Amino acid sequence: MIKKIDHLGIAVTDLQEAIETYKKIGLEFVGTEVVDEQKVETAFFKVGESYFELLAATDPSSPIAKFIEKNGGKMHHIALAVDDVQQEIERLSGEGFQMIDKSPRVGAHNNLIAFMHPKATKGVLLEVCSKKAG
Amino acid sequence: MIKKIDHLGIAVTDLQEAIETYKKIGLEFVGTEVVDEQKVETAFFKVGESYFELLAATDPSSPIAKFIEKNGGKMHHIALAVDDVQQEIERLSGEGFQMIDKSPRVGAHNNLIAFMHPKATKGVLLEVCSKKAG
Repeated sequence: MIKKIDHLGIAVTDLQEAIETYKKIGLEFVGTEVVDEQKVETAFFKVGESYFELLAATDPSSPIAKFIEKNGGKMHHIALAVDDVQQEIERLSGEGFQMIDKSPRVGAHNNLIAFMHPKATKGVLLEVCSKKAG
Repeated sequence: MIKKIDHLGIAVTDLQEAIETYKKIGLEFVGTEVVDEQKVETAFFKVGESYFELLAATDPSSPIAKFIEKNGGKMHHIALAVDDVQQEIERLSGEGFQMIDKSPRVGAHNNLIAFMHPKATKGVLLEVCSKKAG
């Protein structure tokens, strides 16, 4: 079951500059975190019950570096909070949606995450995520 | 002051088909509304304290028709709920951000809205919005 928008992922080229910009826009800065698996450094801002997650590549082989090369800095994905990522993967696959992640993997903040294929969702990259157990 | 993510605007080519897709994803369908000023029909889905707003053009001269022609169906904008749109326009302009709307205008649900220029916000189209008084 989908509970809320967990976060919006926004690809940026210069993380420090983008942090200053979003502070000026008036979002509440929470902190940064390096996610080695994705080769990204993230910066989180709290907005109500959700977050803005700025994503900058830490290596040219990062998926975010490739995304920026193709698209420039812009909205990258929308993450929806669910209770159980594995269960949602099964439910969505059952509905006929193609999943990029067939099983949950670990994202920022130790969350479990899974991406849906954007072709299945009208060009929007959707992620389902939940707090990691344990 | 920014209170929450009010809604995410997603440009789509076929509104009925997109409504069925987002229902299957598991979002709670609220209803549709035609916004004549923007030449769009919108469909709203509730997600926690926020909404997904699907946007389809009702006329080839609609800004959404032009967006889809250039980009295909995808994420169009992020709307942030504020108390007073006029005040936020002044605050953001004072911070040096270029505003597309120099004064509030009326959007869906009779909201007052104003768009920031995406060049000022790292390629993301941000809107500030508030409930219309009266």
